[in-house]
Amino acid sequence: LALLAKSLLELARQAKKLGEDDPRRIINSLKAGLSIILVSLFYYVEPLYSSFGVNTTSAVMTAVVIFEFSVGATLGKGVNKMLATLGAGALGLGVHRLATLSGKTGEPVVIDLFVFAIAAMATFARIFPRLKAKCDYGLMIFILTFSLVSVSSYREENIQKMALERLLTITVGCFITILVNICICPVWIGEDLHNLVALNIEKLGIFLQGFGGEYFEMYEEGLPSKDRSFLQGYKSVFNTQSREENMANLARWEPGHGRFRFRHPWEQYLTIGSLTRQCAIKIDVLNNYIDRQIQPSLEIPSQVKEHCTMISLECGKALKELSSSIRMMIRAETTLLHIGNSKIAAENLKSLFISGLWKEADPLERAPATAVA
Amino acid sequence: LALLAKSLLELARQAKKLGEDDPRRIINSLKAGLSIILVSLFYYVEPLYSSFGVNTTSAVMTAVVIFEFSVGATLGKGVNKMLATLGAGALGLGVHRLATLSGKTGEPVVIDLFVFAIAAMATFARIFPRLKAKCDYGLMIFILTFSLVSVSSYREENIQKMALERLLTITVGCFITILVNICICPVWIGEDLHNLVALNIEKLGIFLQGFGGEYFEMYEEGLPSKDRSFLQGYKSVFNTQSREENMANLARWEPGHGRFRFRHPWEQYLTIGSLTRQCAIKIDVLNNYIDRQIQPSLEIPSQVKEHCTMISLECGKALKELSSSIRMMIRAETTLLHIGNSKIAAENLKSLFISGLWKEADPLERAPATAVA
Repeated sequence: LALLAKSLLELARQAKKLGEDDPRRIINSLKAGLSIILVSLFYYVEPLYSSFGVNTTSAVMTAVVIFEFSVGATLGKGVNKMLATLGAGALGLGVHRLATLSGKTGEPVVIDLFVFAIAAMATFARIFPRLKAKCDYGLMIFILTFSLVSVSSYREENIQKMALERLLTITVGCFITILVNICICPVWIGEDLHNLVALNIEKLGIFLQGFGGEYFEMYEEGLPSKDRSFLQGYKSVFNTQSREENMANLARWEPGHGRFRFRHPWEQYLTIGSLTRQCAIKIDVLNNYIDRQIQPSLEIPSQVKEHCTMISLECGKALKELSSSIRMMIRAETTLLHIGNSKIAAENLKSLFISGLWKEADPLERAPATAVA
Repeated sequence: LALLAKSLLELARQAKKLGEDDPRRIINSLKAGLSIILVSLFYYVEPLYSSFGVNTTSAVMTAVVIFEFSVGATLGKGVNKMLATLGAGALGLGVHRLATLSGKTGEPVVIDLFVFAIAAMATFARIFPRLKAKCDYGLMIFILTFSLVSVSSYREENIQKMALERLLTITVGCFITILVNICICPVWIGEDLHNLVALNIEKLGIFLQGFGGEYFEMYEEGLPSKDRSFLQGYKSVFNTQSREENMANLARWEPGHGRFRFRHPWEQYLTIGSLTRQCAIKIDVLNNYIDRQIQPSLEIPSQVKEHCTMISLECGKALKELSSSIRMMIRAETTLLHIGNSKIAAENLKSLFISGLWKEADPLERAPATAVA
């Protein structure tokens, strides 16, 4: 019993942490409950029920299935579901007409032939990368509705009425769910993507700002400074590609809101994201230089040190400026200034090398800035 | 019209390519159609239909929804669906009992309170990372079934019979779909994961084998060799993490088959995968040396060249051996031999450096082998 209480406590602690990390999650759960309740009213209230019939339950199903965390995902699923139901329902009715021509015994055979062919084709269509990204869910609903309408038409008397009622209830369910999702504390996935991209650049900036000082401290005193966590932050940048792509796909469904207009160029975020990851790879290499505990075999001239620290610092500042300019959606002129500074320092460093003063494996340091610039 | 024909032709070409890339996709589409047809027989055949009733349609729905490309995904969804339906149905019946105590007017209020609370809690539960990985689908079905049973219980006379029939038809639908999926050309996702991991290591090996020769050719003659595509293969390794994690999650559902026993250590693949990616980052750095068109400022002593090429070649061979030993599931002793060779070469190179002969920024080259070893 004590063990049970302990694990329950652990669960509650974890739930609290998840809720605190992102309070929108709690609101979202309440919204999900609310939209199901609103839709279920259709079942309870007499005039509404009698006009829609038993199919009201499919409105409840719709509400449960299409409710998602973000507006983009909910809208995408809702539109997919409505269009697929419409198309598949119409096709199902057509097949039913065709099948009845072949008599009562031939009917199931004809229906099953069509169901088999169309289900197989639609399943295959789900593999196409472009369809998979945009209407994977819609294709599944298409197969589902088509099979249901076709198969039911064998026994159902008034299949047209049933299909129409289903379509109506599903549409109503979709609209209620979408309204709840948009009107009560909406979660815009486009905004999340925007912030994620900016945050990733900022992480790289934080690393570069701290890197210069850290490296030379290590090199000379052989001791890492106490707090090196800022040097690890960039590692999370590596694994965001599929997440970013998914978010950009969903963000396309969202209507204009706030600073994001309709037809916001979401692909640009993917470009920025992939540049950021290339940058992170270069930074990972720099970080390896710190981790490897290099033997200080020869003294570094203070001039070189100064230039290197300058490059790293200015690159870091430039990246942080870039990040905040993305966040605020303004063009920051100061970024160019920082990049200019770091380029001057890099040139100085180069001329030092050419004069044969000292060799150091730091040419990579400039790459990030140029990649982003 | 010519435009339409052209785009149709383009579509057909793309479909053919997708089919040729992986013929299992075509078989899979046919399997999906087949399982829907088998399930729909329940609806047509008289004795089966009369024993299950109208709820037979939910068997068709089940077949459409849980059919997935791999055995692991189908089994996971099927088990999730059956357990969730069972649990939610029982809970829904309990709530119905409780609600009837409060009279006809109070009933919908009590039901909706429960639906709201449980839907909100289950939605929140879907955020927990461990639940999300294993039973995200199950939780959704839980909300769905619970809402349906609870809400329907307001008007349905014999809700127990309905819930039981639904559960039965869903179970039958699940079993038929799973049987079709496993018995006809099964696609084991565990095997795919196994091959993916081995392939990724092989790609790195191919790169390293070719790298040594390519680098020095570039360096001395300033000309890249004609076919450099083998140097690009490793790039696809970067973005496989989320895919690997997903595959390992699904592979856990699969029963033992062929060389894969039950409780195969799927987590190990994730460890290998992340080591492979670290390795790929190091290799990306090496590749940058080729791309950067270095000015041949000083001659490389042939001794250094020999050792470097040796390191790269032996590392590459070791990785390829590793990859094929993973594929065949045997322990390859020759891998150690190659790593040993490359270590000897690296030691020789080091002693050359210490003797002050020549400095070169190639210490990274050894890292991959040690990381994998």
